[in-house]
Amino acid sequence: MPAPATPALDALRARLAELTDLSLLGHLAAWDQRTMMPPAGSPDRGAQIATLSRLHHERATGPEVGEWLDALDGASSELDELDRDLVRLARRDYDRQKLVPGDLAAELAQAAATGQDIWEAARAAGDFAQFAPALERNVELARAYAACFDGYAGPYDALLADFDFGLTAERIQEVFGALGESLPPLVAELSARSTPPPLEPPIAAQEAAVAAVLRRFGVTEESWRLDLSSHPFSTNVGQRDSRITTRYEDGQLESLLAAMHEFGHALYDRQIAPELARTSLGDGTSMSIHESQSKLWENHVGRHPAFAGVIATELTAGGFPVDATGVFATLTAVRPSLIRVSADETTYPLHIVLRFELERALVEGTLSVADLPAAWNDGMKRLLGVAVPSDADGVLQDVHWAAGAFGYFPSYALGCLIAAQLWETLESELGPQAGPLAEGDVTAIAAWLGDKVHRHGRRLDTVPLVESVTGRGLDAAPFLRHLGSR
Amino acid sequence: MPAPATPALDALRARLAELTDLSLLGHLAAWDQRTMMPPAGSPDRGAQIATLSRLHHERATGPEVGEWLDALDGASSELDELDRDLVRLARRDYDRQKLVPGDLAAELAQAAATGQDIWEAARAAGDFAQFAPALERNVELARAYAACFDGYAGPYDALLADFDFGLTAERIQEVFGALGESLPPLVAELSARSTPPPLEPPIAAQEAAVAAVLRRFGVTEESWRLDLSSHPFSTNVGQRDSRITTRYEDGQLESLLAAMHEFGHALYDRQIAPELARTSLGDGTSMSIHESQSKLWENHVGRHPAFAGVIATELTAGGFPVDATGVFATLTAVRPSLIRVSADETTYPLHIVLRFELERALVEGTLSVADLPAAWNDGMKRLLGVAVPSDADGVLQDVHWAAGAFGYFPSYALGCLIAAQLWETLESELGPQAGPLAEGDVTAIAAWLGDKVHRHGRRLDTVPLVESVTGRGLDAAPFLRHLGSR
Repeated sequence: MPAPATPALDALRARLAELTDLSLLGHLAAWDQRTMMPPAGSPDRGAQIATLSRLHHERATGPEVGEWLDALDGASSELDELDRDLVRLARRDYDRQKLVPGDLAAELAQAAATGQDIWEAARAAGDFAQFAPALERNVELARAYAACFDGYAGPYDALLADFDFGLTAERIQEVFGALGESLPPLVAELSARSTPPPLEPPIAAQEAAVAAVLRRFGVTEESWRLDLSSHPFSTNVGQRDSRITTRYEDGQLESLLAAMHEFGHALYDRQIAPELARTSLGDGTSMSIHESQSKLWENHVGRHPAFAGVIATELTAGGFPVDATGVFATLTAVRPSLIRVSADETTYPLHIVLRFELERALVEGTLSVADLPAAWNDGMKRLLGVAVPSDADGVLQDVHWAAGAFGYFPSYALGCLIAAQLWETLESELGPQAGPLAEGDVTAIAAWLGDKVHRHGRRLDTVPLVESVTGRGLDAAPFLRHLGSR
Repeated sequence: MPAPATPALDALRARLAELTDLSLLGHLAAWDQRTMMPPAGSPDRGAQIATLSRLHHERATGPEVGEWLDALDGASSELDELDRDLVRLARRDYDRQKLVPGDLAAELAQAAATGQDIWEAARAAGDFAQFAPALERNVELARAYAACFDGYAGPYDALLADFDFGLTAERIQEVFGALGESLPPLVAELSARSTPPPLEPPIAAQEAAVAAVLRRFGVTEESWRLDLSSHPFSTNVGQRDSRITTRYEDGQLESLLAAMHEFGHALYDRQIAPELARTSLGDGTSMSIHESQSKLWENHVGRHPAFAGVIATELTAGGFPVDATGVFATLTAVRPSLIRVSADETTYPLHIVLRFELERALVEGTLSVADLPAAWNDGMKRLLGVAVPSDADGVLQDVHWAAGAFGYFPSYALGCLIAAQLWETLESELGPQAGPLAEGDVTAIAAWLGDKVHRHGRRLDTVPLVESVTGRGLDAAPFLRHLGSR
């Protein structure tokens, strides 16, 4: 006879709450490290974060957790729908963690740390050969990690599950295939247009515009922080404690795009239903849905022609007189370039298509590390028409592979696609947003996203969520239509 | 046959390192809460801190810790001196925590939280009666807590051990008795002197002076932060990550005194010998020694007549022209007053003498909560010659008793006394410091404190440490001489 569900559920809920607290403390430790910590605090911080993550793992995989889950598996008829989902996700997380031997987990963590150090030196030296052995080791470990899991069509699918549960390489290949075909001619066409020189607002005007735009989005000091960091990011330290960062460089508008992007991530975390807080359901559901939220605010709100007027008003108020046309032209200019993180809205996904192809081939063993730089350079030529002058600005530019993260990249482009899908549905349900956006009013957009996407937390995985909101699966067409309308 | 020492020692050291990490994460969470956190983050932060402290307690008192300590008790001849001390302190901490039943610990935590809420409302209303039941409960629980420990002459000594291990109420009474006799006439004499009106530098000048003085003390952005908080404090988030705060009010010099005070705390944490880090020895040894470090920098460096010239220079450079005489007069003015936290150097310890008398009597049952306000008002009259107009500015002013902290107050005055003892010894060994201080040079002072006090961490308790440095036990005479020299 199975044990009664209630004590096991109470115990599981208490543990999940504890794990949430440890995760949020990890968010705080990482936020502080990137925004506030004096540099000399680094070694101690490393130890603190390692301890947190070791304790999190221990508490998430203790045998008692397995016993509670076993008791609950036999009692699912006694649970309401929310608790059934809670148990389902807790089981999934537990099983995935339990399947990885402790030694392998330690090796992965160690190799990721070493890999990043070596990568940093290799990138500075522009010397891929220096990085190659560490990358080979990371690929090998990623395969060993993938082999821990059954039921996947290939190793890449097993890796994807950590970032986007339920997604397959095959499905991504179909969607990215469409991009790889349709985008390059569009890029060629749009980048050939003559555009005015980009706006170059000074930092003070950017700061004023960032603050004013975030205020219009509902950001208050009561519940948010905006800080500086060398790479913009967003983190939640509590459901009502949202922290986003941006960075300012003279004569750019990236500070504004970054702030809107990070706002989108933060709003997702904030609008998860309160009853999911401190459970296995109280997080964003996947990397690509998270990225779709940041991209929606960056691409569809921030780059909307109607919203350009608001930005122009705020830059002007900040001492940099400009009109909407100039803002819109700067924010939507198309220029194929070498570096992913500074790519424009149109070319950005092509950088990801390349990385997906390459990392999948590495993991599946059809591309050797030695052949990677040449494959990279070929791909940049094919997809973006760009010649790569050095590995530092080519294959060595991103930290992900050095850190052992394979399967992460696709979410960046999937986020762009899903954002466009959601935006089409949003406008079909709420009507065109040009009117409210011209007034800087995003209330209906935020509420719609809260209702359709955010409140569900992890209850729906990537594809079911997209299907439930849009009535269709993953689809590149809305994104291509969005760009075509430029 | 006892188990071999080495595996037990390795295991114990690993656990102590983990406990250190959890403590430092707690420091970070508390620092953030007081300096950075958006107010709406408060409930989640409360949960995070509670989880950290529960996990710390669990990991500190697990049965495996007892087994390691048992194995090491039988093997102390195999250990070097440092490891023997490490085991001795680990055993002390473990035994003290194990002696407190979990239910009582939970009740204490709960009553402390409730007590603070009730106190806040009662203080705002100036209504002691509203607070009395919570205080009665806290006194009762403090007695129950004290009763967990054997071998103390009375309950107050058992409570003291949490703050100043080895100190007794009897010894404190002797020392404070000397203060209670000698200080009031000195206060009467000094406060009767005619003094110039206090300096009233604007905030900008204070900020400039605080930054400049800390720079002279060796504070760099590489390894320190200075922030604002409503009550100044110091915390270490890592041995090379020191965070201090101050607060600015127009027309005051408290910002400067607070910054120097908090610097003293931080320097203690920073100069603990690196080989003690992440062990049971790697902290300040007691509340009163910690306070002696802050008071030394506040009273003996900051208020030194020679250093007044440095402060004058920096205030002048900050746009507030002033001379050393004016600074010195402001920093050493004597004015009996109602509120402990804004009391001057001379009257401050009398506020503590009163609190010690009262809390000891409460805990020993010779004073009832109902009689406390009258006893408070009598004591203020007797010790400071001050009439208390309302309980809000009297018995309700401090949070300590509301939070269940009995035995904490003495360290504030002991810190003043020990600072004066250390300073006399320092000057007898290094020579008078007027010369270096006139130049703003504190190098020799910091090095001497590092060698005599800081590097030992918890290896020496309060009294043995004072004896080892000064050749005498606790003694009020140096502090009285220090004031007499004004």
